[in-house]
Parts: sequence; C-alpha cells; structure tokens
Amino acid sequence: MTDAEAKKPQESLQDRLTQVVDLLHRQRLVEELTHRQEGPHHQLVEDLVHRQNLAELQRKLNELHPADIARILEALPLEDRLTIWQLVRAERDGDILLEVSDAVRETLIADMDDHELIAAAKEMDADELADLAPELPRDVVHELMESLDAQQRERVRSALSYDEDQVGALMDFEMVTIREDVSLEVVLRYLRRFKELPSHTDKLFVVDYDGMLKGVLPIKRLLVSDPEIQVGEIMAVDPVSFHPDENAYDAAQAFERYDLVSAPVVDKNGKLIGRLTIDEMVDLIREEGESEVLNMAGLREEEDIFASVWKSVGNRWSWLAVNLVTAFLASRVIGLFEGSIEKLVALAALMPIVAGIGGNSGNQTITMIVRAMALDQISSTGNTARLLRKELGVALINGLVWGGVIGAVAYLLYDSWSLGLVMTAAMTLNLLLAALMGVLIPMTLARLGRDPAMGASVMITAMTDSGGFFIFLGLASLFLL
Amino acid sequence: MTDAEAKKPQESLQDRLTQVVDLLHRQRLVEELTHRQEGPHHQLVEDLVHRQNLAELQRKLNELHPADIARILEALPLEDRLTIWQLVRAERDGDILLEVSDAVRETLIADMDDHELIAAAKEMDADELADLAPELPRDVVHELMESLDAQQRERVRSALSYDEDQVGALMDFEMVTIREDVSLEVVLRYLRRFKELPSHTDKLFVVDYDGMLKGVLPIKRLLVSDPEIQVGEIMAVDPVSFHPDENAYDAAQAFERYDLVSAPVVDKNGKLIGRLTIDEMVDLIREEGESEVLNMAGLREEEDIFASVWKSVGNRWSWLAVNLVTAFLASRVIGLFEGSIEKLVALAALMPIVAGIGGNSGNQTITMIVRAMALDQISSTGNTARLLRKELGVALINGLVWGGVIGAVAYLLYDSWSLGLVMTAAMTLNLLLAALMGVLIPMTLARLGRDPAMGASVMITAMTDSGGFFIFLGLASLFLL
Repeated sequence: MTDAEAKKPQESLQDRLTQVVDLLHRQRLVEELTHRQEGPHHQLVEDLVHRQNLAELQRKLNELHPADIARILEALPLEDRLTIWQLVRAERDGDILLEVSDAVRETLIADMDDHELIAAAKEMDADELADLAPELPRDVVHELMESLDAQQRERVRSALSYDEDQVGALMDFEMVTIREDVSLEVVLRYLRRFKELPSHTDKLFVVDYDGMLKGVLPIKRLLVSDPEIQVGEIMAVDPVSFHPDENAYDAAQAFERYDLVSAPVVDKNGKLIGRLTIDEMVDLIREEGESEVLNMAGLREEEDIFASVWKSVGNRWSWLAVNLVTAFLASRVIGLFEGSIEKLVALAALMPIVAGIGGNSGNQTITMIVRAMALDQISSTGNTARLLRKELGVALINGLVWGGVIGAVAYLLYDSWSLGLVMTAAMTLNLLLAALMGVLIPMTLARLGRDPAMGASVMITAMTDSGGFFIFLGLASLFLL
Repeated sequence: MTDAEAKKPQESLQDRLTQVVDLLHRQRLVEELTHRQEGPHHQLVEDLVHRQNLAELQRKLNELHPADIARILEALPLEDRLTIWQLVRAERDGDILLEVSDAVRETLIADMDDHELIAAAKEMDADELADLAPELPRDVVHELMESLDAQQRERVRSALSYDEDQVGALMDFEMVTIREDVSLEVVLRYLRRFKELPSHTDKLFVVDYDGMLKGVLPIKRLLVSDPEIQVGEIMAVDPVSFHPDENAYDAAQAFERYDLVSAPVVDKNGKLIGRLTIDEMVDLIREEGESEVLNMAGLREEEDIFASVWKSVGNRWSWLAVNLVTAFLASRVIGLFEGSIEKLVALAALMPIVAGIGGNSGNQTITMIVRAMALDQISSTGNTARLLRKELGVALINGLVWGGVIGAVAYLLYDSWSLGLVMTAAMTLNLLLAALMGVLIPMTLARLGRDPAMGASVMITAMTDSGGFFIFLGLASLFLL
C-alpha cells in the first residue's frame, strides 16, 4: 500500500461526492440522449460530450485519496458505484478494496474478473492479502499464493489461521528491528538505507540474534539522545506487547488506554512475530461501536445501505422471527384475560401503556449495562447486587411518579379510582421487572459466553410486554371484577 | 502529563481490578473488626493489619498506569472509589482526572479541596487545563489562571472559547516547528536539544518567520533522507490540516480515513496555532459510538453506573416522559375502538402483535439509517427516494410473509378467515408505515439540525404503536363488524 501524505482536503467529502454524482448524472443524461436521437452527426457530438464528461470524472477521481474513493463508493447505489469503480485506475484497485466495508467490497469483487483481482492483490502485503482472501474466488487465492515467496506465503497462512477477532489476524509484518549493542549513530545510519519506513513507525523493535524481543526504542527517544550511546541503554524494556491469540478488541482498548501508535506482537516464547498499529485499532473501535448498535436493534451485520431488498430481508429476518414468537406469547397472555377485557374494555386501551413504558425503561437499563460491560466496568465480583439495587430504586421512583400520573389520568378518563390504583401498581411492578431483566439478561448472556448486546432490545421488550400485560390484566381481574 | 512507556500488562485489567477490590474488602473487614472488638491489644494488632493492607494496596496502585487507575475507579462504587482515590499519590491526581469519564470525574473533584485541585491542575498543559476548567470551582480556576504566564493563559482562554465539539477545544500546543531553509542535519541537531519530544510527534511543522504553515516534515522521511538536503526539498506541502472552528468529529473521521497520527491546526490566514493527535481522536470516535447508542435508547448522557438513584432518574426521565405521552396517545387510539373490542375481544389480544412487529422492524430501519448518516453515506442529494423504495420493499416482503404466518395463526386460533386476512393486511401496512417513518424521522431531525439518533427508538415505537393499533382496529371495524 502506498503511504503518501494525504492531500489537504480543500472541499468536504460531501462536496466531492456531490461533484462526482453530478458528473455521473450528466453522463447518464448524455447516454440517454444518444440512445434516443439517432443519426451520425448527433452520434459524434454526443460521443464527444460523453467522453469529456468521463475524462473529467476520471480526473476528479485520480485526485482523490483511496479512502475518499471508498467513501464515495459506499454512498452510491449499485449501478453508479460500478460505473465509478470502472473508472478508477487499475493500480489503485487494491488500496480501495482494503478501505471499503465488507458489504460493499463484495459488490466490487463480484464486478471484477480473475485477472483484475490478481493484479489488484499482487500489490498487497501479506496481512492485507489475508484480509481479502476469504472473499476472493478459490482459484484466485490459489494463484496468488503460488506467486508469493515462501516467507510471504507463510505469513498469509499464519494470518489466515487466526479468527478475525484475534490479534494474529490484524498484525502486520512491516517491522524495523535493531540490536541492543549498537550505538544510536549506527541505528540512524541503518535507517538511512531504507527507501521508506513502514507507516506508523513510532518505535524500533530491539531483538537478539534469535529474534526474541528485548525492548523497544521509541523514535522520540532516538532523536533526542546522544548518538554515541548504545541502544540497550535507552531502550524501553518490558513494553506493552501482545500475543497473536489475544482478543483484538482487548488490544484496541490497550492502545486507547496507553495512547499507543504501534506495539510488538510476540509468540509465547517472546519471539517477535509482528506488530499492531493504531490505524487497525481505530477501525476496530469504530466497528465495535457499530456492532453494539446493530446487535441491540437485532440486525445481524452491517448492511450496504444500497443492498438489494432480498439481502436486507436476509439480514433482518432472524430477529423479526424471534420478535414474532415473543409478540405471539404476549398475545396469548392477553388471551388468558379475554373474559376480563370483555367485562371492562378500558383494560384493552390501558394495557399498552403499562407494556410500553416498561419496554422503554428496560431498554434504558439494558443499554447502560451493555455499555458498562463493553468498558469492563462490570465484573462478576459482586457488583451485580449493587447495580440491581440501584436499578430497582430508579424503577421504583419512576413507577410511583409516572405510574401515579397515569393512574390519575386513568381515574379522570374512566371515573374509577380503583382502576387508577391498579394502573399505578401495574406500572410500578412492570418497571421493577424491566429493571431486573435489564440487568439479568445481559449478565446471563455474558456468563453463557454470548455477546450481551445480542438482540438485547428485542428480548427486554418481550419480557416487558408479556410481563406488563400479565401484571396489569391479572391485577385488574383480581381487584376490579 | 508524563509520557512514560506503559509497562507490559502482565495481568489483565480485570485481574488487577479484582486484586484491588480484594485488598479493599480485606481492609474493610479489618475496620469492622476494629469497631467491634475493643481493648488496647486488639486495637494494636488490627491497626497493624490495616496499615499493612493499605500499604500493599498503595504499592499496587503505584505500579499502575494512570489510565488503569482511571478504569478501576470507574468500575468501583462511590465509597470504594473514594478510598482508592485517597491512596493515589497526589502528583498523579492530574493525569488520572484527565483519563476518567465526565460523570466519574465529577465525583472525584467533589472529594478534593481547592488546595488539592490546584496542585493537580498545576502540572497540566494549557489544553488539558481547558478540558478540566468547566468542572472546577470558579475560584480554583481563577487562581490557576493567575498562576499561568501570559502565553499559557492566552492558550487556555482560546481553548475555552470553542465548543467541546470543535477542533479548537481538542487541539494541543506542543508542536515542534522548523524552518524550510535548513538542512536535515541541522534539524537532527536541533531535536537533540530537546529533553523530550511531545507525544505523538510523527511530523515536524515547517513554518516561515510569521508562523505560517509551509508544510510538514514526516519523521519517517527525516530518518531515511540524506542529512545534507534541505527541509524544503522533502517536506510535504499541502498536508491535511484543520481549522479550529471545524467540527471535531469530522476531523476524527479524517484521521481515520487518512491514517493520521498528528495534524496541524491553522487559523484562517494559514498560521499554525496548534495540533491534533490521534489519541484525542480515538476518544472522540469511541464517544461518538457511545452517544449514538445512548441517544437511541433515550438516555441523555453517559451515566456513572454507580451514580445515585436520583442522578439516574434525572438522566432518564425526559425520554420516559415523552414515552408516557406517546403511550397515552396510543391508548386513546384504542379508546376510539372500544366498541369494536367489546364486540370482538380477540382484537385486544391480537393488536399488540401488529404494533410490536412494527416497532421492531422500524427500529431496524432507523438504526440502519442513523448509522449511514453518521458515516456520511446518506446525503440530501436524491438518495432518499431510493432508500425509501428499498425499505418499503423489505417491509412489503416481511409484511406478506410474517403477516401471512400470523394471519394463519389467527385463523387457526379464532377460526375466522376474515380475521386472519385483516391481521395480514394490518401487519403489512404497519410495516410499511414503520419503514416510511424509519427513513423520514432521522432525515427530518437532520434537516432540522438535530442529532438524528436523538430518541429515535422512542419516536419510531410511538409511530408504530399508534399507527398499528389504528390500522388494525380500523380495518377490523370496517370489515369484521
């Protein structure tokens, strides 16, 4: 991947997107005209305009950073996206493929033939290739592997052997290593022999003859120190380092906590095998935030917003199905009390309030808890009871206050103080249930080794719906009929 | 702030937290015993044990990185948190205050007297001081400002003059500047005169005599180039730079897109006034993800999970109140159809299914749209119609399939094919409504200049509840009675 300094973005991404879209539309207009108006003369003129537009578009694209082109591709519907993709200079294909989201990458790869794919992938480093490999056709991967030297092939294999949420899958191999028994002067001279240093090189890795990590030499320290002294004297021993089978998200949190830019990855014997850099960690932090939002809403994965209707249905159907079952159960709870509702139809009108407020409040609790768990603020060391007490306290206050308000409204509407009291009591009890479940659901999921955010919203709503109906209709049947 | 290399985390944060909590609890136990068992001998023994425990705890804390102590403080209930806070060495107070979340910082500051606060803040740089100032007592800020030299005071004032979501509030002033007409050799010698370079120095800023930014010299390039050549020959002109009044989150996205570690901030004349670094941007990216999750659930802000019950009630009440109003409206919609429900009580049991599935599906849509808007994938340039078509398509398929299933179940339960048909039709229409609102609500909020995630979940649920009840009961009244 090239590592040129990005050019100053004179215009915002949104402006650039608008320009590209304008050019695209102008070109489409020309295409339509060409089809409608026949005749050799028109043809010529239109061809000329068409080509001018394409040329302008291509010029615009060539000026853009691969990351910007990636963003533009993501923001375009499929046909426009592929038009732009065709115009991108072939040698930039690889960089752009690495920048787009998985969902969009799929649409781009589907548009490329094997020859193009191999050309794009040949420019890549081992870790980038490993990123891409699972989405490439089998024979393309095979041909690519054949074209690599033994070390590169070994690296790709190694990166592919880790889960995508392990450090090993995210590390790269572009390390500058030095020995501890040389002077800084020698290090500086050694560095000058490089044509270019790897991106995000903020420290050099100090290794012994067996490749064991002895320490790191921060570039900052190299620059301010006397060139006569030895690496060993000023290197940082015991730097933050990671193992390839560690959880990548934990590593990202460590990067955030310790403000790291790069860090060594060592195997269990302490041998240096790769490094992590902040750019990969930033992507991970963003993705983690995204997946929390998506999971809570019951979406399986990030969606290309311009995905086909069928793809979207596929992404969303599973939690909808769960919701259907839970809604059906809630409906059966109401079914139990059909006799009561027939006698007092006001119950039918009031029951969704009890269920709704419970759902809203439960969602607030579960969101708090899921967040705190993601930040490691909640452990299994006896905080549960305290959190539960607090959430139940909040629920009790809200239940009495808001339940009181809605109870008063029910009294005014239906002129029955006992209905009002039942309403207040049911609200309070359902809010307590919501608090209890809002704490217990994510904790139970975590203890079962699941993602605590997984469909949290659907589950808590299911509890507060069925529970709310049962509590309200049950109390009403006991005390009002 | 010190910039020492973080030590290798031998144990996970969770382990260390557990250790600290264990020590704390052992100490509390001792305290309790001391109170219960009187007599001079016991007193002596207990005091000794107590002091040993405290000493061990303090030793553990001294070994930890300020960021780790911050995490531990966040994960502890208030009384334990303050016990630990007292044990932290005074000179580390400042670093830790800068690392904890706003909610926790408030509890820590409340525990410090003016003298301690001034001591902690005196170690800080101008930008850090500006971060903290809004939360400090007025006279402490006044005294701190008095103690600063004119340049520092001006910097703090400048940083305070920006909103917290503007670049100006996040920039720091620790820049290394050089001139373009000197050789790299001179630059290297100049750097050796520093005792330490600012953290995240991956480039030097090239300025002219008036302080105007002429370019940047990446350290990477400095290290591999011939020392004889001049800065001007190899510096990157036109680097990515920011203005202090730009949106900080846009800057964070640019850092992510262009893999930046640091970037210059210039005023509108092009004069260098500060710099942004990736560590601040990472925090911002995480916070943005968090606030999206919190806002969608209708929480006003991040909560200290061990906040008092009253504080939590305060954080959550506003959206609960909104929800109460919307639930009441939905209840009134049902009220309109009480006559129909009296005649056919099955309607009461079935109506929450229509509303619930609509809410779930609407939440999926609105989550997708809010995400895409946060990533700038949706603009006002005519994508709305296309997105709407897609979401309506998904809704139509889901409505016919799941509505069909639930219609069949309704037929089996109540032995009425017309009831089943009404159910299917109502489900489909409510899902279409959910899709429409899921796209329009966030887009409208954005057009009004509001955060599109703001209470999105509460609002979409309100629509699909009232709408679902109206559609289902309305259709039933028309066709079944």
